[in-house]
Amino acid sequence: MDEPHKPLAAAPSARRPRVLILGGGFGGLHAAQSLASIPVDVTLIDRRNHHTFQPLLYQVALAVLSPADIAQPIRGILRHQANVQVLMDEVTGIDVATRQVALASGAQMAYDYLVVATGATHFYFGHDEWAPLAPGLKTIEDATEIRRRVLLAFELAERQMLEQGWHPPLNFIVIGGGPTGVELAGAISDIARLYLHRDFRSIDPAKARVLLLEGSPHLLAAYPADLSAKAEAALIRLGVEVRTGAHVSAIGPGWVETRSQQGSSRIDAAVTLWAAGVQASPLGTLLGVPLDRRGCVLVNDRLNPPGLPEVFILGDLAHVEQDGHPIPGVAQPAMQMGDHVGRMIAADLAGRPRTAFRYFDKGDMATIGRRAAIAKVEWPFKAHMSGLPAWLTWLTVHIWFLIGFRNRIFVFATWIWSYFTFTRAARLITGDQHLPGWNDKVMSKPDNRNSINP
Amino acid sequence: MDEPHKPLAAAPSARRPRVLILGGGFGGLHAAQSLASIPVDVTLIDRRNHHTFQPLLYQVALAVLSPADIAQPIRGILRHQANVQVLMDEVTGIDVATRQVALASGAQMAYDYLVVATGATHFYFGHDEWAPLAPGLKTIEDATEIRRRVLLAFELAERQMLEQGWHPPLNFIVIGGGPTGVELAGAISDIARLYLHRDFRSIDPAKARVLLLEGSPHLLAAYPADLSAKAEAALIRLGVEVRTGAHVSAIGPGWVETRSQQGSSRIDAAVTLWAAGVQASPLGTLLGVPLDRRGCVLVNDRLNPPGLPEVFILGDLAHVEQDGHPIPGVAQPAMQMGDHVGRMIAADLAGRPRTAFRYFDKGDMATIGRRAAIAKVEWPFKAHMSGLPAWLTWLTVHIWFLIGFRNRIFVFATWIWSYFTFTRAARLITGDQHLPGWNDKVMSKPDNRNSINP
Repeated sequence: MDEPHKPLAAAPSARRPRVLILGGGFGGLHAAQSLASIPVDVTLIDRRNHHTFQPLLYQVALAVLSPADIAQPIRGILRHQANVQVLMDEVTGIDVATRQVALASGAQMAYDYLVVATGATHFYFGHDEWAPLAPGLKTIEDATEIRRRVLLAFELAERQMLEQGWHPPLNFIVIGGGPTGVELAGAISDIARLYLHRDFRSIDPAKARVLLLEGSPHLLAAYPADLSAKAEAALIRLGVEVRTGAHVSAIGPGWVETRSQQGSSRIDAAVTLWAAGVQASPLGTLLGVPLDRRGCVLVNDRLNPPGLPEVFILGDLAHVEQDGHPIPGVAQPAMQMGDHVGRMIAADLAGRPRTAFRYFDKGDMATIGRRAAIAKVEWPFKAHMSGLPAWLTWLTVHIWFLIGFRNRIFVFATWIWSYFTFTRAARLITGDQHLPGWNDKVMSKPDNRNSINP
Repeated sequence: MDEPHKPLAAAPSARRPRVLILGGGFGGLHAAQSLASIPVDVTLIDRRNHHTFQPLLYQVALAVLSPADIAQPIRGILRHQANVQVLMDEVTGIDVATRQVALASGAQMAYDYLVVATGATHFYFGHDEWAPLAPGLKTIEDATEIRRRVLLAFELAERQMLEQGWHPPLNFIVIGGGPTGVELAGAISDIARLYLHRDFRSIDPAKARVLLLEGSPHLLAAYPADLSAKAEAALIRLGVEVRTGAHVSAIGPGWVETRSQQGSSRIDAAVTLWAAGVQASPLGTLLGVPLDRRGCVLVNDRLNPPGLPEVFILGDLAHVEQDGHPIPGVAQPAMQMGDHVGRMIAADLAGRPRTAFRYFDKGDMATIGRRAAIAKVEWPFKAHMSGLPAWLTWLTVHIWFLIGFRNRIFVFATWIWSYFTFTRAARLITGDQHLPGWNDKVMSKPDNRNSINP
């Protein structure tokens, strides 16, 4: 860490070094912004036109916010930075020898520096066939698909009750007890108990069951034991059935099978959501460098893969150890790594040695539901918070970091409105009326009648 | 019209009459609300869970508003009305003899009164193969698809220019010079000239061409000649190329062929939009009653098809003549017809004769672009308005009629924000990166180079 890094040979003075950034998430965006006053030409490539504020995605999935509240066009965010081009394209190959990137459009782009910040995606532990049955939450499209399924389940139950006098069990199963799973389970319980009950006449949405399945013995394994226990207690108060030590062995249309020490059991599911596994973006494999078992690129403390000082890996795609532990794949380290890229390239251009990246951990927090959250605060003071104080801290931090002044105002106004009126404004079902497994159950019911009319 | 209508035989006193309303648009919603204090049991069926405020759909298509700003769950709107059930289902058959409606879910529902208000859809003059090439604007899904195509066209042009140094013509072709076509053409011109130009580096969005094709000699044929001429002049000032007397003879991926008196010509199109033809919802055909050539049900002045006094047809699906002219298929008459249903059913139950429906025309307006609109005002005074006064009137009326207090506030705030900052907040491309015809053009360019790198 103390050994000074030799700067790259200076680029020919006739032209400015070209920095190619892959990915417009927290890491890529911060990397681009950190280069604003450095004499380089930056091109940021993303296959989407927008940056997504992933920490609030679950609020789109549960109809609190609209997609545009938490997603902004990348070229809009970087509009005022003169040395950046934004390109909507997909990377299909990286040639580190000739320093070229191949794109889906057929073009090639050369680089002097390459920043790879393409993040992570769902991992179904080798069962990719589970993906359509149990969507995960990483993109705006994922969020609107989850919203469609959750709201549609209530509509189909109401329809079935009104038309036939019965309905299949209205069970929502969330697989995975990390922060996303806890957020989703708490938010589904909230919407069912507090926000939908006045909308329906034939069913009582509050009677929907929300099950949170976690294979390990505790929820939120990355948090201290006291906070993890408080989160579990808060979820149970919200009516969520928490099942720890439950391994999912199979997922089918309308059901989930779990195996625990007591044996295996099959649970009916109106909607199944996946929050269990995460793997690194496949772009790591294009570099031909060592990866960890989740596909993250093993980098040194300057964020370079071995032997490639002109390549930086950021955020969820990077496996960086600090004080003997890997840095977690959340927003804060990704942003800080992005900022570090600017400092390192500036050092190179000035002929100064590079410095090691060090993650400055301000803490971690997870929201559970209305007025409930947990927070492990590391800065500006150290504390474990839960309940209302943690929830207010969570709100403040998330409004603060939301990109775009307009979004901050509108999201804040939406939250105030939703909190006091008990409404969720974005309860739109778009797309088709299909829910995996539901129709089969309706058809297979033996006493299926054709009419409710007497 | 003066002949009193005989009330239906009263329903058995043991049970309240059942009113089935098909469609949750302006007509169906007003019909349901008009029955609030009448002792009937109402079921409103729609295949979507939301009411869409169609007059503002084009603002979703052009990234001003989010879908949830103009669409509200039907059961949320009717939440406080105790005698209404809302059912998300699709009607597959109507048996007027036994007074039963068959649903896609397999159920049947009996009615004493049937209100059919399922509106209209696009009509491609028998060329249904044009639908994927030139989407129309009737639903939230249509609006986000048009948004995807328009924004993607600019992204692909920027990418192509950045990577290859050229791009196919960035032409937006709107087919049909009625209110929707005029709105779309003006709004595309606005976003290209005023809202996107700071976002792009390699292309100048303001150089995009917007063509509005209309088969008849004038735009907005339903308006007085002076307003129609003013609208055309305003569009031309906005940079729209207006081609009247141009009949579309063929549409392909990336092109539109027109035939006029001068012969036929083929125009390159990055995006083609359809605003030319409208036909009635197919539910009219299920009734087995006479229809006009667009599929609208011919009804008497009490809104009943011949011989079916227990069936009411409302809104765009109804062909109603008044003073020798058909009542136009816009929101106002649909709402008024909905209100009339309540009065007629109340009359039946009270043993009073039904009265004729009479459309009270307050006027018509069409928006063209930023600070430009036309309005034919009939009430509270008669006037022809254009320019800024018409535009302000348009804004006021549309905020006023928007359903939901929250939506009124948030849409108003969004408009203010967008007007002064020249930003469109909802510039999200969701879905894939395919644009019909674009890729072929890129591939077929003879001097296609593989790299922009020197």
